[in-house]
Amino acid sequence: MKQLSTTIFTTMSALAQQHQAINLGQGFPDFAADSALLDAAYAAMQAGHNQYAPMIGTLPLRQTISALVNRHYGFVADVDKHITITAGASEALFCAILAITEPQDELIILEPAYDLYRPAIINAGGRPVAVNLHLNDKQEFVVDWAAVEAAVTSKTRAIIVNTPNNPTGNTFTADDLVELERIAEHYDVWVISDEVYEHMVFDGALHQSALRRPALAARTIHVASFGKTLHVTGWKIGYTIAPERLTQAIRAVHQFNTFTVATPLQLGIAQYLNAHPNITDELPAFYQTKRDAFRQGLAMTGLRLLPCQGTYFQLVDYGDLSSFSKMSDVEFAVHLTREVGVAAIPLSPFYGVPLPQQTLVRFCFAKEEQTLVAALDKLCSGL
Amino acid sequence: MKQLSTTIFTTMSALAQQHQAINLGQGFPDFAADSALLDAAYAAMQAGHNQYAPMIGTLPLRQTISALVNRHYGFVADVDKHITITAGASEALFCAILAITEPQDELIILEPAYDLYRPAIINAGGRPVAVNLHLNDKQEFVVDWAAVEAAVTSKTRAIIVNTPNNPTGNTFTADDLVELERIAEHYDVWVISDEVYEHMVFDGALHQSALRRPALAARTIHVASFGKTLHVTGWKIGYTIAPERLTQAIRAVHQFNTFTVATPLQLGIAQYLNAHPNITDELPAFYQTKRDAFRQGLAMTGLRLLPCQGTYFQLVDYGDLSSFSKMSDVEFAVHLTREVGVAAIPLSPFYGVPLPQQTLVRFCFAKEEQTLVAALDKLCSGL
Ligand SMILES: CSCCC(=O)C(=O)O
Ligand SMILES: CSCCC(=O)C(=O)O
Repeated sequence: MKQLSTTIFTTMSALAQQHQAINLGQGFPDFAADSALLDAAYAAMQAGHNQYAPMIGTLPLRQTISALVNRHYGFVADVDKHITITAGASEALFCAILAITEPQDELIILEPAYDLYRPAIINAGGRPVAVNLHLNDKQEFVVDWAAVEAAVTSKTRAIIVNTPNNPTGNTFTADDLVELERIAEHYDVWVISDEVYEHMVFDGALHQSALRRPALAARTIHVASFGKTLHVTGWKIGYTIAPERLTQAIRAVHQFNTFTVATPLQLGIAQYLNAHPNITDELPAFYQTKRDAFRQGLAMTGLRLLPCQGTYFQLVDYGDLSSFSKMSDVEFAVHLTREVGVAAIPLSPFYGVPLPQQTLVRFCFAKEEQTLVAALDKLCSGL
Repeated sequence: MKQLSTTIFTTMSALAQQHQAINLGQGFPDFAADSALLDAAYAAMQAGHNQYAPMIGTLPLRQTISALVNRHYGFVADVDKHITITAGASEALFCAILAITEPQDELIILEPAYDLYRPAIINAGGRPVAVNLHLNDKQEFVVDWAAVEAAVTSKTRAIIVNTPNNPTGNTFTADDLVELERIAEHYDVWVISDEVYEHMVFDGALHQSALRRPALAARTIHVASFGKTLHVTGWKIGYTIAPERLTQAIRAVHQFNTFTVATPLQLGIAQYLNAHPNITDELPAFYQTKRDAFRQGLAMTGLRLLPCQGTYFQLVDYGDLSSFSKMSDVEFAVHLTREVGVAAIPLSPFYGVPLPQQTLVRFCFAKEEQTLVAALDKLCSGL
């Protein structure tokens, strides 16, 4: 039987609650979603949309998604052939991995990597092959494409990428996409592109979606979700966009897994996004303001800041703080939660084999200003 | 890669729509859910419950479930150790099967069987072993426990049962549970008990839940859902109740599959059921009235009625109608949909190897009285 080892997100959220710490661990906002979104979901319920959605998702939401990726990335997604609505990006990734993995297949992941990829690959009978991200001299976690290419073997089935990157906050450049496309084409492998933070890219940069390059998109399963974008992580409405053959394979899993996804929430999101088509354009500035304020405060704590180009996560290095530098990252995150009153996520659970002496933890800044101020106060006085 | 073969439910619903037939195929109600339930979900949204629920489900809903099974079956479910909220019964079954199946394991299913079991077992690397239900002289599809016992081998990992039974409408007797418990204990196998129609048992009979017998419950994954019970099949809130070790294994899959389930819908259901604790007691009479009216009308069509002890499905045999008796069940269901204007579900997709010359199709009677009357009119004039 499967063995349960509880995820770091669940563990730290429980610890935060136990010690009444400010929870900057698990990634979710502490502010309200737009009431117009809630009203739209309620209206869908009242209009009687409470029975099974089509297995591939409601047509209105697939149309909305098609319009969204067209506007942002110039990609033309066919609502019937390319788009499948899933129970969040989690189920999308789980189904995508199951859909393409045969026993003994290798799937390349870039570590630190979101903690779902590895168990999902193992569950599918595949083998995760980890390539470490490279910490460059600007302290950015960038992809070492030569290392990725060197890791490709005849058994490689896919490369899983994630931009903007959780947990590092790094984002792809246009050159990253070129390299990814070259390797994927040359070795004939699939790409799973986890882009759930697609609308949180800062400093005027563009999100480098795999959908921007037709040859790359032709072998990519694009995974995204409305949870982060619309501040409703608990609604669990995600989706895949993939070429027809890959979409068929994903649906072959999805239809016997969750089969369909909450109908009124799908329709509420579709209705809301149609009424507010530019809402995603406001997100970069919205989160950049939070990032800047949070970083400014953190700079006073003695924690060393790493760059943050995207996502709503900020990495910090506690290695310069002599009282803590000997602690493991898990010990430090637990200390922060229990003694300082601010929960964070250590980085080691994002590795198959954690790097020795890495002294990094992740904070989530998708919080009200006063939450961030209160957390910064505690960090300033507690460190 | 996985191959998509679209389920019969999706196929027939699409065909029904195309031909504007009355859809008595896929199992879902055409009447409104209680507005108090919708209001409760909306209230949860407005109160800000839109972020990730705990991985195992919200505490209020787990408490509500614990109270429910205690009241109905005298079972004491620990909210932390035994109950896990899933994206409908589908994800519950999918996770349960993945949780317990090792490559080459055999899982016994009783055919006709719900069409998810077989692909989910194969997906998990296991082997479905089908035992046919026995059509007794009362035309009931009953379990032949001697045949089940004969099918057990050293590789058998579990027996999947389903009462009330979709598609046959048959229900377990207390003796069925005794037999199931004896076999499960003697051969040390697990039981997955799909009880999503638990509150639709007719003629004063009791639902024979596996949770009623402690020794059986100790090796059972009980699967249920609120979709059928509360007339919201599109909300996709289900759950498992299982002993601690099995629950841990289920959660090990669930946490990397959907991870969590729509928070406001969970809380809406909990709030609604707490305010209306007896709502489940009203369901048998509610559906029995529909069943009786529908059967009375069907008796005039020339279709032969099989017994219906539970579920909201009615099987009919078209073998006595000489113009149709040579048709396969799929052909007949398609004919009904296209020419008569009433969609039904053929039985052969519920078999790995369909029985030759079986002439049965399934109607769903979870419909408004006027829908059933209109369908009966069409059947009377069209057959
Ligand atoms: C699915 S819980 C984790 C949420 C998240 O994406 C994160 O905190 O990294
Ligand atoms: C999940 S779609 C099928 C609904 C159902 O349970 C049925 O019609 O048998």
